[in-house]
Amino acid sequence: MNYQLILDEVAEEVMSLKNKGKVANYIPALENVDIEQFGMSITLFDGTEYSTGNANTLFSIQSISKVFTFTMALKLYGTDLYKRIGREPSGNPFNSLVQLEYEQGIPRNPFINAGALNVTDSLLSHYHNSINSSNAIFKFIRDIASDNSITYNKNVALSEMDHGFRNIALANLMKSFNNLDNEVDDVVKTYFKHCAIEMNTKMLSRAMLYLANHGVDPINGIRYITEEQAKRINAVMLTCGHYDASGDFAFHVGLPGKSGVGGGIVVVVPKKMGISVWSPGLNSQGNSLLGTKALELFAKKTGLSIF
Amino acid sequence: MNYQLILDEVAEEVMSLKNKGKVANYIPALENVDIEQFGMSITLFDGTEYSTGNANTLFSIQSISKVFTFTMALKLYGTDLYKRIGREPSGNPFNSLVQLEYEQGIPRNPFINAGALNVTDSLLSHYHNSINSSNAIFKFIRDIASDNSITYNKNVALSEMDHGFRNIALANLMKSFNNLDNEVDDVVKTYFKHCAIEMNTKMLSRAMLYLANHGVDPINGIRYITEEQAKRINAVMLTCGHYDASGDFAFHVGLPGKSGVGGGIVVVVPKKMGISVWSPGLNSQGNSLLGTKALELFAKKTGLSIF
Amino acid sequence: MNYQLILDEVAEEVMSLKNKGKVANYIPALENVDIEQFGMSITLFDGTEYSTGNANTLFSIQSISKVFTFTMALKLYGTDLYKRIGREPSGNPFNSLVQLEYEQGIPRNPFINAGALNVTDSLLSHYHNSINSSNAIFKFIRDIASDNSITYNKNVALSEMDHGFRNIALANLMKSFNNLDNEVDDVVKTYFKHCAIEMNTKMLSRAMLYLANHGVDPINGIRYITEEQAKRINAVMLTCGHYDASGDFAFHVGLPGKSGVGGGIVVVVPKKMGISVWSPGLNSQGNSLLGTKALELFAKKTGLSIF
Amino acid sequence: MNYQLILDEVAEEVMSLKNKGKVANYIPALENVDIEQFGMSITLFDGTEYSTGNANTLFSIQSISKVFTFTMALKLYGTDLYKRIGREPSGNPFNSLVQLEYEQGIPRNPFINAGALNVTDSLLSHYHNSINSSNAIFKFIRDIASDNSITYNKNVALSEMDHGFRNIALANLMKSFNNLDNEVDDVVKTYFKHCAIEMNTKMLSRAMLYLANHGVDPINGIRYITEEQAKRINAVMLTCGHYDASGDFAFHVGLPGKSGVGGGIVVVVPKKMGISVWSPGLNSQGNSLLGTKALELFAKKTGLSIF
Repeated sequence: MNYQLILDEVAEEVMSLKNKGKVANYIPALENVDIEQFGMSITLFDGTEYSTGNANTLFSIQSISKVFTFTMALKLYGTDLYKRIGREPSGNPFNSLVQLEYEQGIPRNPFINAGALNVTDSLLSHYHNSINSSNAIFKFIRDIASDNSITYNKNVALSEMDHGFRNIALANLMKSFNNLDNEVDDVVKTYFKHCAIEMNTKMLSRAMLYLANHGVDPINGIRYITEEQAKRINAVMLTCGHYDASGDFAFHVGLPGKSGVGGGIVVVVPKKMGISVWSPGLNSQGNSLLGTKALELFAKKTGLSIF
Repeated sequence: MNYQLILDEVAEEVMSLKNKGKVANYIPALENVDIEQFGMSITLFDGTEYSTGNANTLFSIQSISKVFTFTMALKLYGTDLYKRIGREPSGNPFNSLVQLEYEQGIPRNPFINAGALNVTDSLLSHYHNSINSSNAIFKFIRDIASDNSITYNKNVALSEMDHGFRNIALANLMKSFNNLDNEVDDVVKTYFKHCAIEMNTKMLSRAMLYLANHGVDPINGIRYITEEQAKRINAVMLTCGHYDASGDFAFHVGLPGKSGVGGGIVVVVPKKMGISVWSPGLNSQGNSLLGTKALELFAKKTGLSIF
Repeated sequence: MNYQLILDEVAEEVMSLKNKGKVANYIPALENVDIEQFGMSITLFDGTEYSTGNANTLFSIQSISKVFTFTMALKLYGTDLYKRIGREPSGNPFNSLVQLEYEQGIPRNPFINAGALNVTDSLLSHYHNSINSSNAIFKFIRDIASDNSITYNKNVALSEMDHGFRNIALANLMKSFNNLDNEVDDVVKTYFKHCAIEMNTKMLSRAMLYLANHGVDPINGIRYITEEQAKRINAVMLTCGHYDASGDFAFHVGLPGKSGVGGGIVVVVPKKMGISVWSPGLNSQGNSLLGTKALELFAKKTGLSIF
Repeated sequence: MNYQLILDEVAEEVMSLKNKGKVANYIPALENVDIEQFGMSITLFDGTEYSTGNANTLFSIQSISKVFTFTMALKLYGTDLYKRIGREPSGNPFNSLVQLEYEQGIPRNPFINAGALNVTDSLLSHYHNSINSSNAIFKFIRDIASDNSITYNKNVALSEMDHGFRNIALANLMKSFNNLDNEVDDVVKTYFKHCAIEMNTKMLSRAMLYLANHGVDPINGIRYITEEQAKRINAVMLTCGHYDASGDFAFHVGLPGKSGVGGGIVVVVPKKMGISVWSPGLNSQGNSLLGTKALELFAKKTGLSIF
């Protein structure tokens, strides 16, 4: 299949769309990103990579980082992790406190904010402090993306802290239910740090390979997690990866994926490839508008959708 | 692949399990079913059918009927249907009124009870009365299952009416939000009638083919719905088909499916086959315990899971 | 104190107000009432009655009837009644299902709709059927109001049935929690019948005397309920009598009272008198606008407020 | 009336009760208080004071402080205060986040924790920082209690900080809705400081006089707030002063009051006196068990109940 041609066609089609959505504006660092950007990359199991558009431009990965921290926590704790976090869809706006209170401080899944904070807390418990935890997260991401230059944007992390009252509320509520081991401040700081990591679509499509290949990096043969764990992460992405549009994403794209408010999306094609797309304009559910559209077109043209 | 052998192995493995779950006991007609039963069937696109165990035993399809009524409503109304019903996971127990009130009488998806009642209401509006609607539903199911003997169990339907206060509450709540067109009594009666339809796994695996084949029955070539509509139904099954265990089902089985409290499950293998399994004992989330286990084994042995 | 003069002053002051609120419009029978009407009456313990304005005009008492059915149920069941109904403020719109579901079908108090339906159910259980129950309710109200002409408006009762889906939902939800003994249809019909009772302010001010006098009618000496029970009813009126404006009513009027969407309000002045006021225009919380204002003025001029 | 005799009788009756409730145990500083203590005081408008039992023993006033901060905020902001806080009963456990989220960060009333935190925030905005605010609160309480020795217990305040995750969550949630002006940390610290103030029943009964006398201290003639404001505070105490037992308190005592988890209760007898009672054992709703009982007996013996 001529992937380069398909990617270029997809890019042309989506860039011709007039409505490019709305850039996230809750923090200035995200607000000022140029909406006219679009990049997309795929990486095959043999390491071949195809890209189109702004595939070298770094952007804030935001909630995509939740896939990586969930992986790390699952590796460290195994199924014990589910004593503190569920793995079913939430059906409510992604940061709702109502459900968390109703369910006694146990977040529904690792991709809603409460769940991701809880995952970060579990990493802090293992790595003892915020610096070590952040370093471990950076190291893991650099490993799977095979790129040592990856780091985070301090301004974005600080900006988040200034507007993160709801996340701090979620963390305190979990703490009041004895479902958070470390200081709220440490948890939230570490969380915002990994949300502020910057990557491009080339790096991210590469980073998805271990999930596409049952836990083993197909290029260097390193096993990061068990096959069961990779399957679980893919299942959670499939049912919970896109806030209140997870059902829509399953319909349009039909593949496990995770989006972030920075406009990035990662997608896993089991046994075949990793995909990443980026365009900063969001649709009404908070997912990249052009990104979602591009993935739909790509799935259709390649027949890679599960349906 | 030797499907017969695999099915027989699966049957043997699950029947050796000691814990067979608990039969639904909210109505006497379901309570008295022998828990030691297990049946499983697959039907391929060329009509070949493989079965094991009690594949000829009729059982109450219950919520599996929601797949059929959703199909009929989607065919009749197209995307206009989404003005009255959502298509995202609900994340709450499957018949919660809280969410329905919070979201102004619009059910989250067609598979929670409120959504299925709403779908039935839309059929009543089209077919004018309960008799015509039920007949249309029977006809559709007989067509896709290619079996004219299919009918419903009157006792079960009447029993449901005697214990259906929460469903009647849901219907009245939707009516108070002007999101139900017909008399509550008619809607609920029609709904319980199609829940009380009795089929076996042979019929049900046959009946899934149109969903596995983009809307067209692969055996007789009849198009029931568009490709888009088939894809949508599969996506809703994947994310919402198993109450509060939809994420778990995606993990274990990795295929679109729908379960019912009668112990039946249907599964779609896109572009390949229809599957149905039945065993009346349920797990704690209300899905057939042996059935879920059998599907997991089958997916593993055949490599049909999407992951 | 010259009560007649005070009443006339109050009437003049409130009738000069330009904003008279909005007549309840959810059923035609209430919608067509002339908004320019105002009546007010007080009845002292010796039977002396003072009135002003449209004190002879019959109106739909609606939720005021909840005071009478609560009295009857408390007399029949004593504190056993609290096994099925609470007695604390609800803090939510008066007919919310959320709280009812959260609290397992036990309504918060007898004045929210769920609670009043539950009280009616308890009367049905005692009087065996709807006719007997309604007759018992009519008899009780005729007794305490000392007026045998009192009856209900059939059109209003029927109209309510046509728009009562939310009440029917509430009743079915309680039934699903085993907290409703009789058929939903009978409960709701009986409930709407007593809501449709028509009285005027003269009758209603007379009818409050037993609550002002510790359970005993001060004119004829008949004891209807114990002192404890009268105190409880007054306490529930004080904290829950005015939907989501109970705190405001306590502030403005400072006396136990109960309002209805027909525009009527009854007030108890412990050890002194019964009061009733009527004006069909409602404020944003569903209480008579002029009626509330008149009671506030009356309380101020007479110093009868508890504060 | 021989108040001393009545108080002594009340003390004897309640101290003879075997069940004295349970001391609050969420912080060690409260947990270690001897449950066998009981004190009660009344102060009349001429300054005469009657006491019984441990009326000189200092205890943690906890939520009783909310009456004083509400008074101060109402004096500073007038009815503008209601732009940020409601004044109606909440009907849910006193620190629920659900309602706060549902109502967009506006607490239902100044006596639930969210409301009291919000009131404290309004004081911080006026007094610029935590020290000044605390000093202003101390000064106000010393003035109305006419006792310059009143101060707070540092250990209690620090202990609260260590277990106050839910309060911190509430404050952060309000901040995320732009309904909190100051730093969460400052608000919560100041709040816990005024909760940790220690007083005895003599001081507290004296401190209630301005509320019993329409805003003016009847002994020294100082007007603290307007008559309207005093009336409002009394109304809020009457309908919201006792968590989820406000209706019960209205029934048993029939007077405006406010309780705290330290076991103290204050009560206002409009135009007559201030009352305070203390006993550290709490009933299941979190109000002093003996204290509530004592107030009920006192109201009955003196006929001071509003009913």
